[in-house]
Amino acid sequence: MLPYISEFLGTMILILLGCGVCCNVNLDKSGMKGGGTVQITFAWGLAVLVPAFIFGEASGASFNPALTIALAVDGSFDWAMVPGYIIAQVAGAFVGAILVYILFKEQFDATEDQGTKLGVFATGPSVPNTALNFLSEAIGTFVLVFAIKGIGNVTGIATGVDKLFVFGIIVSIGMSLGGLTGYAINPARDLGPRLAHAILPIKDKGSSNFGYGLIVPIFGPIVGAIVAVLLYGAIPW
Amino acid sequence: MLPYISEFLGTMILILLGCGVCCNVNLDKSGMKGGGTVQITFAWGLAVLVPAFIFGEASGASFNPALTIALAVDGSFDWAMVPGYIIAQVAGAFVGAILVYILFKEQFDATEDQGTKLGVFATGPSVPNTALNFLSEAIGTFVLVFAIKGIGNVTGIATGVDKLFVFGIIVSIGMSLGGLTGYAINPARDLGPRLAHAILPIKDKGSSNFGYGLIVPIFGPIVGAIVAVLLYGAIPW
Amino acid sequence: MLPYISEFLGTMILILLGCGVCCNVNLDKSGMKGGGTVQITFAWGLAVLVPAFIFGEASGASFNPALTIALAVDGSFDWAMVPGYIIAQVAGAFVGAILVYILFKEQFDATEDQGTKLGVFATGPSVPNTALNFLSEAIGTFVLVFAIKGIGNVTGIATGVDKLFVFGIIVSIGMSLGGLTGYAINPARDLGPRLAHAILPIKDKGSSNFGYGLIVPIFGPIVGAIVAVLLYGAIPW
Amino acid sequence: MLPYISEFLGTMILILLGCGVCCNVNLDKSGMKGGGTVQITFAWGLAVLVPAFIFGEASGASFNPALTIALAVDGSFDWAMVPGYIIAQVAGAFVGAILVYILFKEQFDATEDQGTKLGVFATGPSVPNTALNFLSEAIGTFVLVFAIKGIGNVTGIATGVDKLFVFGIIVSIGMSLGGLTGYAINPARDLGPRLAHAILPIKDKGSSNFGYGLIVPIFGPIVGAIVAVLLYGAIPW
Repeated sequence: MLPYISEFLGTMILILLGCGVCCNVNLDKSGMKGGGTVQITFAWGLAVLVPAFIFGEASGASFNPALTIALAVDGSFDWAMVPGYIIAQVAGAFVGAILVYILFKEQFDATEDQGTKLGVFATGPSVPNTALNFLSEAIGTFVLVFAIKGIGNVTGIATGVDKLFVFGIIVSIGMSLGGLTGYAINPARDLGPRLAHAILPIKDKGSSNFGYGLIVPIFGPIVGAIVAVLLYGAIPW
Repeated sequence: MLPYISEFLGTMILILLGCGVCCNVNLDKSGMKGGGTVQITFAWGLAVLVPAFIFGEASGASFNPALTIALAVDGSFDWAMVPGYIIAQVAGAFVGAILVYILFKEQFDATEDQGTKLGVFATGPSVPNTALNFLSEAIGTFVLVFAIKGIGNVTGIATGVDKLFVFGIIVSIGMSLGGLTGYAINPARDLGPRLAHAILPIKDKGSSNFGYGLIVPIFGPIVGAIVAVLLYGAIPW
Repeated sequence: MLPYISEFLGTMILILLGCGVCCNVNLDKSGMKGGGTVQITFAWGLAVLVPAFIFGEASGASFNPALTIALAVDGSFDWAMVPGYIIAQVAGAFVGAILVYILFKEQFDATEDQGTKLGVFATGPSVPNTALNFLSEAIGTFVLVFAIKGIGNVTGIATGVDKLFVFGIIVSIGMSLGGLTGYAINPARDLGPRLAHAILPIKDKGSSNFGYGLIVPIFGPIVGAIVAVLLYGAIPW
Repeated sequence: MLPYISEFLGTMILILLGCGVCCNVNLDKSGMKGGGTVQITFAWGLAVLVPAFIFGEASGASFNPALTIALAVDGSFDWAMVPGYIIAQVAGAFVGAILVYILFKEQFDATEDQGTKLGVFATGPSVPNTALNFLSEAIGTFVLVFAIKGIGNVTGIATGVDKLFVFGIIVSIGMSLGGLTGYAINPARDLGPRLAHAILPIKDKGSSNFGYGLIVPIFGPIVGAIVAVLLYGAIPW
């Protein structure tokens, strides 16, 4: 049971801190409104780092269905555990987003723009173009998964430094490619909070845009992650 | 005597550097006025990192009554030392705040806004709502204490990297949730400087707002910290 | 074959992430437009860190003809492999730049300024002055190569921490000297994307400025790198 | 001879990168003008980190007369080497500042404000007040030296992580207290570039303000550093 609890709690903390920073710098009446993209990208990196330290040994700290599926394709994770992991990840993200809503209730009430209110939960493209948006999510996730695999190349890496590297990967993808689609690079990170947005009684909230959300941030990352492990496996290391 | 001296000096340095950055970017006539929230959150992380390295072996580098109490609840710290630790922490924070006032005396004199002058010492909510403010401090401290406990899960972590992780936790909480209440997440961090604000001859200083300060930033963190160790202990690691 | 594949893929990822951040914060209709120089310099550091972890053992993770040549001058790299490395590096940078163009196609189409569109691919001087621009690239690369050599001085450095140090060097050079010429400090980093700019059907793109690009960002770094290994070798460590 | 060469070259690189970032974000016609205080403080930390890695084993990487003197007071450095170290440090800083001037020659020519042109070389107070300015430099250097001594408390620290900690200390002092006097916290860092400012043919340069520079940024750091080692030695670790 521990691995599933771990993925649930880890993804919950990931979204609490990740969607947290989006609210923190974007919602009206937040004391840190206007913090900007350095804060957002740095904080998402930390939002992965913190639960990665805590839950790394218990479950591998995937928190990401695309990564989980790719590791199963790769043969380094048991297919039988994949469904449970994905359910735990999406559920954790959903609960994390509800926590964020409760904490920022006053700020949501004070924010009028519907796009902003959706944007702190779920990702969206700066220019809608399904093919390119899909490619953006696929390539971002490719870098993530390829790099995570690559940590295994560093013989004798000091314990803990590997986690700092994962932090670096997340910040890197966000800073370099995040302006295209908001870098979901993780189906649970987008779907869980989007479901929360759809269900929660957010004041004047507008559409949850599932037309985008059920395609691009789910299948883009999965395709990118699988290509990453296949390419990684094809290189004669 | 060493552990108490260590907690006193460590918390003093924490507040010197932490309230220091608030003055540095917020008070008029400071050469770094306008540095913004990335600087504030990064510097608070460093304000914990620096004394954590120095005093980690001498006292555990708690610097935080909520953490100290929670570790006692957890059975990993001796209840008999709790009162002395808390006194040392609050006293260190108080002295650190006095040092900050002396250093920034000219800048305090040049700053007119009373809220700014209180805000560099003590925390406050962006939207007053006692229940949500309390929850914000409790959840922030929950993440802090749960993550600190979680470092123990990383078998064979390289010495020193654990301190970098603590830095990451503090920055993460600040960047992601700090806009709600200013993230005291530590009763001494708020109470010590607030007492200093009340006692110091700050020019045209206004209220020290103990109505907020004696409730939310003291009991919110304590509740969150205790819940963290209880949940951590309930997980079948 | 592995070292050449490694240099090709590593430099491709370097440019994908490095030119990526330039597009991300500079092109119109990017969701992170305006991110600023902290984001740019930090992200270029990560753009080196990520492939350095992945490919460090396979090829030494040079990704830089100036560094490769200097290490050969130094006797710590085989001259016979230099041509293949350089070809792999420039080709990787070229392909990485094409990927960036495809990903940011909509943003390129939306951006009118020709200088901006060249600037996200290739470097250029803030004030044209061939001698000083050359010196700027030479000194920046001197620091890079001298510091990389210097890591060898740290006896028993924890594995992985050396990579974090390389990240620090790149960020340092960018933050401190980057406003002079855009800190190519790497002939492949400039030439590959500049060739891509020349060949790609970028809308209303203007000159690729090879008059600058074939001199300063190629020979400046090579001279600086060679001086660095010579000086390093002359010090009686 | 090696330790003196090391202190000379290390301090030269420190000032090249440190005064470099000041020029990079403050002088007109620099491509990174307006980078702000996060860039400045981060880059100064890296400006210490880079030579600290390279020269740590050769000379201890002091680069700072106040630290060198304090370590001699402490008994952990040989008094006979102090004069040579100080000369090497000030000379290195002077040469580093000349390099910065040459590199940014066009930008100096384009910048009209005399205070800006002095400010990229030497430190100065945001509000002139000799006693408080002196105290500010003393306390900043106290934190620096006390924390450096404190690294010795971390038993078994992973090699290299200690250097990252030194980086953290420098960034911390800058971010938290730098707006008071520009945080020289090092007599050589201020005196070397100030001498360069006095001697170099900078266009319309104005006063080098030795009235301030020969007192506060020299003796403030020395006093603070000595108090740090004395207090550190008095604690019953």
